Amino acid sequence: MTATRIPILVTAALCALLLAAPRARAQSDPLPSWNDGATKKSITDFVAKVTKEGSPDFVKPAERIAVFDNDGTLWAEQPMYFQLLFAIDRVKALAPQHPEWKDNEPFASLLKGDAKGALAGGEHAILEIVMATHAGMTTEAFEDAVKDWMKTARHPKFQRPYTECVYQPMLEVLSYLRASGFKTFISGGGVEFMRAFAEATYGVPPEQVVGSSGVVKFEMKDGKPALIKEPKVEFIDDGPGKPVGINRFIGRRPIMAFGNSDGDLQMLQYTTAGEGPRFALIVHHTDADREFAYDRQSHIGKLDKALDEAAAKVWTVVDMRKDWNAVFPRK
Amino acid sequence: MTATRIPILVTAALCALLLAAPRARAQSDPLPSWNDGATKKSITDFVAKVTKEGSPDFVKPAERIAVFDNDGTLWAEQPMYFQLLFAIDRVKALAPQHPEWKDNEPFASLLKGDAKGALAGGEHAILEIVMATHAGMTTEAFEDAVKDWMKTARHPKFQRPYTECVYQPMLEVLSYLRASGFKTFISGGGVEFMRAFAEATYGVPPEQVVGSSGVVKFEMKDGKPALIKEPKVEFIDDGPGKPVGINRFIGRRPIMAFGNSDGDLQMLQYTTAGEGPRFALIVHHTDADREFAYDRQSHIGKLDKALDEAAAKVWTVVDMRKDWNAVFPRK
Repeated sequence: MTATRIPILVTAALCALLLAAPRARAQSDPLPSWNDGATKKSITDFVAKVTKEGSPDFVKPAERIAVFDNDGTLWAEQPMYFQLLFAIDRVKALAPQHPEWKDNEPFASLLKGDAKGALAGGEHAILEIVMATHAGMTTEAFEDAVKDWMKTARHPKFQRPYTECVYQPMLEVLSYLRASGFKTFISGGGVEFMRAFAEATYGVPPEQVVGSSGVVKFEMKDGKPALIKEPKVEFIDDGPGKPVGINRFIGRRPIMAFGNSDGDLQMLQYTTAGEGPRFALIVHHTDADREFAYDRQSHIGKLDKALDEAAAKVWTVVDMRKDWNAVFPRK
Repeated sequence: MTATRIPILVTAALCALLLAAPRARAQSDPLPSWNDGATKKSITDFVAKVTKEGSPDFVKPAERIAVFDNDGTLWAEQPMYFQLLFAIDRVKALAPQHPEWKDNEPFASLLKGDAKGALAGGEHAILEIVMATHAGMTTEAFEDAVKDWMKTARHPKFQRPYTECVYQPMLEVLSYLRASGFKTFISGGGVEFMRAFAEATYGVPPEQVVGSSGVVKFEMKDGKPALIKEPKVEFIDDGPGKPVGINRFIGRRPIMAFGNSDGDLQMLQYTTAGEGPRFALIVHHTDADREFAYDRQSHIGKLDKALDEAAAKVWTVVDMRKDWNAVFPRK
């Protein structure tokens, strides 16, 4: 080896180290879209302690259950719940088969493009729209309708598919928890609506989605078994329904729960009331520029009582504007 | 090395080979309690083809869902459903808190030791017994009651704990499927009753148990959240309810289903009606010596229509007496 070759080798080695450094850093940070600080640290500290064998806080993998609300926690929920936007689009698509809708509310207003007028009928109007668009077909046909809509519909503010209006920092939490031996569940929305995209979008398989449901009936159609969606509410996965749904579907109390509104309060209470280490997190929408800012007065995703309880019980509260360096996945 | 040492070494090597042979054979046979023949082969052939990458029948792991009925499929169900035996024992345990039961049927007969008389009231009597023993407590208190009962109760014929009246050949199928990348689910019985022992007994975690349920209510008790079991039926996981429950809890059509009675027929129909490779199996109770023999005329676990359909559709039917070389796990 000549004397000149040694500095070249040293330089090459240094270059390799320098080039590798950012990659190594990215690999070592499971939550790159979270700014460093108390919020991020509360997540990584909790995961570190429950996964450390021999630690008094160690939780065996079978009991590492984490539950995520969807609307406002994993994806956006403004200007209104995406599932309601799907239902409204579906009223328009189905209108030719329902000439009577032209003369009946809330459909008449919807078909004239007046969603606000249609929804003035409150919960009753919403229920009518959901029942008319989520029933009278097989579960497979409904799944296809949701998938088709996801391909073409665009969010009015962000001009991107709804499945890209998911929060990048929360996708990282989902992956991080799974890599740490957790089973990740979703609780929220209509169960069959969610299952149509949860696996591709969140990596959460259908059997790990808890949600609201309508009655489904088994029948033989032309000698083939079919499951038909009926226009009748079976279960509402919201507020006190959330722990009930978690108990029914999962049968085990989660050790981590993630929400964003008063509708998640009972889920957070139930999760944190269990013995041993427990973790609760609330996404506070504080970013009117990059997303939306709303809390105590909002008609959708109202966050009032749960915000007070989070302060009293020292749950983690995400300040979206401050804690997240990215909101949505890059296009 | 002397001439005498060579034969010694050869003998030692031969001995080692001979000793190792049964062990190697046991390791290579995932279903040692199944006698060789068409029944066993139908299971192993199906698993081989759906797990072989590149094969036209390959099924990706996420879709390898197998569902098992419990009563009569994974454990015995005679002389009556074990959950009903639990409920009857519980009536006796709770009687001191219910002096009125002495004068009211079906409780009065039960407390006199006349189970047959009590059950003469049919479904209504059974429902009364179940509601009185499965409600009015938290979900945790109920789980404890089931676990306590499992520790002490003994099956009247087999004189062993109910959790040891499970079928060894079916335990082997559960393990074999999981080792082949399947997720194994149970569908049957009361969901909270099943979950109290399914993980320890079958290796099936609570979130993979589908079952009948009563209404559960969330409430705050002394400032702590609690889930209270109410005396009101929510869902019956039997007959046409089985595919409905599978759709609700799992959200994905199984590719394998295992049952033993007409109550499993719709589950087997639904499973096998899906596209791609599908497998259905019925356990036929033909062994009065080692277990029980019953089918078309039985008041419990009646197997009539499903037996005809199995023949017509060439589903696998297990002849317990002929196909199983062991019924229960060794004590």
